[in-house]
Amino acid sequence: MNFSERLQEVCEKKNSHLVIGLDPDMDRLPAFLMDFESPFLEFNKSIIHATSDIVCAYKINTAFYEMYGVQGWRAIRKTVEIVPDDTLVILDGKRADVPHSSQKYAEALFRELRADAVTVNPYLGHDAVEPFLARKEQGAFLLCLTSNPGAQDFQLLRVGEHFLFELVAQKATRWNRNGNLGLVVGATQAGYISRVREAAPDLWFLLPGVGAQGGSLEQSVREALRKDGSGFLITVSRSVLYASDDMDFAEAARKVALDYRNQINAAKHS
Amino acid sequence: MNFSERLQEVCEKKNSHLVIGLDPDMDRLPAFLMDFESPFLEFNKSIIHATSDIVCAYKINTAFYEMYGVQGWRAIRKTVEIVPDDTLVILDGKRADVPHSSQKYAEALFRELRADAVTVNPYLGHDAVEPFLARKEQGAFLLCLTSNPGAQDFQLLRVGEHFLFELVAQKATRWNRNGNLGLVVGATQAGYISRVREAAPDLWFLLPGVGAQGGSLEQSVREALRKDGSGFLITVSRSVLYASDDMDFAEAARKVALDYRNQINAAKHS
Repeated sequence: MNFSERLQEVCEKKNSHLVIGLDPDMDRLPAFLMDFESPFLEFNKSIIHATSDIVCAYKINTAFYEMYGVQGWRAIRKTVEIVPDDTLVILDGKRADVPHSSQKYAEALFRELRADAVTVNPYLGHDAVEPFLARKEQGAFLLCLTSNPGAQDFQLLRVGEHFLFELVAQKATRWNRNGNLGLVVGATQAGYISRVREAAPDLWFLLPGVGAQGGSLEQSVREALRKDGSGFLITVSRSVLYASDDMDFAEAARKVALDYRNQINAAKHS
Repeated sequence: MNFSERLQEVCEKKNSHLVIGLDPDMDRLPAFLMDFESPFLEFNKSIIHATSDIVCAYKINTAFYEMYGVQGWRAIRKTVEIVPDDTLVILDGKRADVPHSSQKYAEALFRELRADAVTVNPYLGHDAVEPFLARKEQGAFLLCLTSNPGAQDFQLLRVGEHFLFELVAQKATRWNRNGNLGLVVGATQAGYISRVREAAPDLWFLLPGVGAQGGSLEQSVREALRKDGSGFLITVSRSVLYASDDMDFAEAARKVALDYRNQINAAKHS
């Protein structure tokens, strides 16, 4: 089973297109967690236990952990171990390097940290992306159109008749020989998401930017929807993680996550 | 003193534009090092002791370490500690993310791992790069034109009258308000390096691709040279690290490094 098929299966089984970003900020964790040896791990464990039946995947942004060095790296590993087998892990590291080095990153993320999928930056081109696609049951989401204002600088440049991000989407379609390449498309980019869908009719989209960054959930779903009514994941982080800053934080997170899950499913059928 | 001024000072003091890439491959290390607890660290220590008087900087590619997880991360930290104060450390991680996350990477690389400089990917645009430029005495090299074949896919696209990589170089010039932004320009890209120099007359270039990847040292130097006769660093890795696979590996590495240093200085004045 290739990674796209795994995504399809997990979305159906959980009746969910929701991904929770486990990007804990030390300053925003409930104070009582500070008594634990690893507040991050304790926090992630509670969030995972409270939500794993209603999400397809957890997304772990490596930046939030690397800033704590060796300890942070250990927290990523242990978090991945806690995620139940029926739920996927996306390591959001936005790596890419010349092929010899990309291979090492693929080793780090897929073998050492046991990710099901990773995020990859397209700027270095095909040979930098390919090492992340070698294992067909594990996959990659290629940055296509990101949610930040800087997307204007290069991604939205006109190259002939197309925007640069459309060319990235077209190339990704061709690079998807193993059925394990998707695209990162910012939910803040209303109006452009449908252009990515036109350029890559079959690929899975990972959409960050709903919630704290202000992207419209309903419009994002409508534009990202594949002909078969699937093919997209919505990722939320801060609005779920910090739903409460007290002892009930995990329970509060579940409530918000459930609400997102249902809103997404409603938008799918609207 | 900003990062560009620090580069100028160290190049003059060492009479060198050479950077050694400390990217050890377990399969290629001298066999006797396998008896040590951390073969990587032992290897790096010997290379650094044998060469630090003739190089401006060591470049550490994080991919080669991350594949060993927590242990690898620890080896980066310890390697950085060994580098003498008069020699710079460039952490080659090619990171970039939305601003909130790029800030965390900057923390990881500059504060936790104590890099003097990092490499950064331009695809996400200005707000993703800015967090790496906040400390003026520490700097970043932005990927502009990379040494791999995949550079064709996007970097060499025509955007109006320019190649995409020229627009990256132009923007970098504008983003360099703190005097601490340079560019990564592959030494395999003969003919194009001079176009980058035209687009960014004042920036420092970091040039990988000489040696194992086959870029011409002499032509790269000629094209990268700034009007003041400086403004560039040549990075070599495998051809220095594996000059010998026996007990004399560090001595052999020094000989090759010295030869590169002298060839670069000769090319500068030719």
